[in-house]
Amino acid sequence: MEIKPEEVAVSLEAFIRQYVEELEREGVVLGLSGGVDSAVVAALCKGAVGPEKTLALIMPEKDSNKEQAEDALVLAEELGIKARLIDITPYLKKLGVYKLFPLNKPLLPKKLKEIMVRRAYKYYQKKTGETPFAASLGGLKDKDFSAYLKMSNAYYRAKHRLRMLLLYLEGEKENRLVVGAANKSEWLVGFFVKYGCDAAADIMPLLNIYKTQVRELARYLNVPGRIIDKAPSPDIIPGLTDEKALAISYEKLDLILAALEEGWEVPEIVEALDAAGITGEQIIEVKKLVEKSAHMRKLYWPELGT
Amino acid sequence: MEIKPEEVAVSLEAFIRQYVEELEREGVVLGLSGGVDSAVVAALCKGAVGPEKTLALIMPEKDSNKEQAEDALVLAEELGIKARLIDITPYLKKLGVYKLFPLNKPLLPKKLKEIMVRRAYKYYQKKTGETPFAASLGGLKDKDFSAYLKMSNAYYRAKHRLRMLLLYLEGEKENRLVVGAANKSEWLVGFFVKYGCDAAADIMPLLNIYKTQVRELARYLNVPGRIIDKAPSPDIIPGLTDEKALAISYEKLDLILAALEEGWEVPEIVEALDAAGITGEQIIEVKKLVEKSAHMRKLYWPELGT
Repeated sequence: MEIKPEEVAVSLEAFIRQYVEELEREGVVLGLSGGVDSAVVAALCKGAVGPEKTLALIMPEKDSNKEQAEDALVLAEELGIKARLIDITPYLKKLGVYKLFPLNKPLLPKKLKEIMVRRAYKYYQKKTGETPFAASLGGLKDKDFSAYLKMSNAYYRAKHRLRMLLLYLEGEKENRLVVGAANKSEWLVGFFVKYGCDAAADIMPLLNIYKTQVRELARYLNVPGRIIDKAPSPDIIPGLTDEKALAISYEKLDLILAALEEGWEVPEIVEALDAAGITGEQIIEVKKLVEKSAHMRKLYWPELGT
Repeated sequence: MEIKPEEVAVSLEAFIRQYVEELEREGVVLGLSGGVDSAVVAALCKGAVGPEKTLALIMPEKDSNKEQAEDALVLAEELGIKARLIDITPYLKKLGVYKLFPLNKPLLPKKLKEIMVRRAYKYYQKKTGETPFAASLGGLKDKDFSAYLKMSNAYYRAKHRLRMLLLYLEGEKENRLVVGAANKSEWLVGFFVKYGCDAAADIMPLLNIYKTQVRELARYLNVPGRIIDKAPSPDIIPGLTDEKALAISYEKLDLILAALEEGWEVPEIVEALDAAGITGEQIIEVKKLVEKSAHMRKLYWPELGT
């Protein structure tokens, strides 16, 4: 799983530059979340087109972890790129999104909200044998607790779709290319919002790079350790980090995904990765996520024999 | 270009039913614009999953032609499907979208606005030799009037992206499949909004069917003649119909697209389609649109040799 960060960085910067030129843009725009993926994309964009042509939108909302936007602002300043802070709470309110929070208690302090989410998440897993995330990838027909899952899907996904809309809105005003930050691990297991800011962009420089490799790249690019080391989180449901939602660490997930990509069968992977503490169950679970999320990576239309 | 509407309808309904079942949804949701494409999709959905499982969102805004929403409502009632009318003007206002209208005169009556748009459109064509639509497909670096084109892009595209967000929001609340209405003609020449409601959906039943064939299908499905015969319009820029924006009729466009798909060279097409009044210039223009819009049909990521 090792990459040569210096070579990868050069080739990704060339990739970004190529599309800015081919698509005749005057710069790039990206969403900066405070997490490691978008930090790496920001650094690569700066390298590719220069800081003055790189615009970062920082788009926190009521449920966001405050530190995330702060880290994003500090990073933008360190990189010397342009940044705009847009609080998207008023838009989400107007769209009625917050009313959909499935455990809605308007006056509940955020800390308690986070605990409630984590408890509900564990409870669901215990009762049904799958994570709410895995359940949400497929349809919800006849699912246990489907009323909650539906509200939850509508509630968190609208946030990233609105961010996508705003990235394009700001990008189009200034003829900028929209650069996304999805990585290969998230992409393969469907850990993104279909047509959200983490899936819908003009180009996706990190889409062929596993999360653990993104961290290596981040270190090479001198992304602040604070950003590299924090627990990755989509920051759209209070209290829910990536690894809690996925119920597996990225170290393990990436090893499994790479083995599956090589076409290995489950028993082979178990044998090879046993020392890494990876179980057959985990491999089967990851395989299921990849299959269940296939529809999120493809638009379906009929062939009709034409 | 002739299709057998009865066979196509059966196969498209089966296609819709298949994905509703495979993706375990409890119904479908679609945007109903008052135009022929979404009318056909609504009729097909009704056939596929029944009227009570078909939800249409009608999403007019300030700039929309009033007749469009009226026609959509009447059609929904005729089909017996569920419909919700959502005026998206307040959301667009909140997002600052109307301020971007490039010929902004807040107090201008809509009729005059329409005339101004058409005049500006013609003026642009005369001055630059290409339509503003063709210009907007590529980047706008060093383009004439690029400040206007940028504003215009940001202004009309946000509307369809917001509609996409709302389709998914309502769809997710009720575990519905989002069914899109893009047709093959629009898709190939890039006459849609990237990640807008006309391009971003779970399935696209009409994506392999040219616009002129959609009309045949509409007749077979008993879509009201009023909807079939009206001038197609994206209804997002006042006064601009599809054929004004594209600067070619769908009859001609579809013939050219079909010939290009067969791999014919320009002189061959000229020879074959001369009787239809199609010129070499028009063919070259269409070819250019197909090439310039390639980036709208594909998400780019680096190969990296992995």
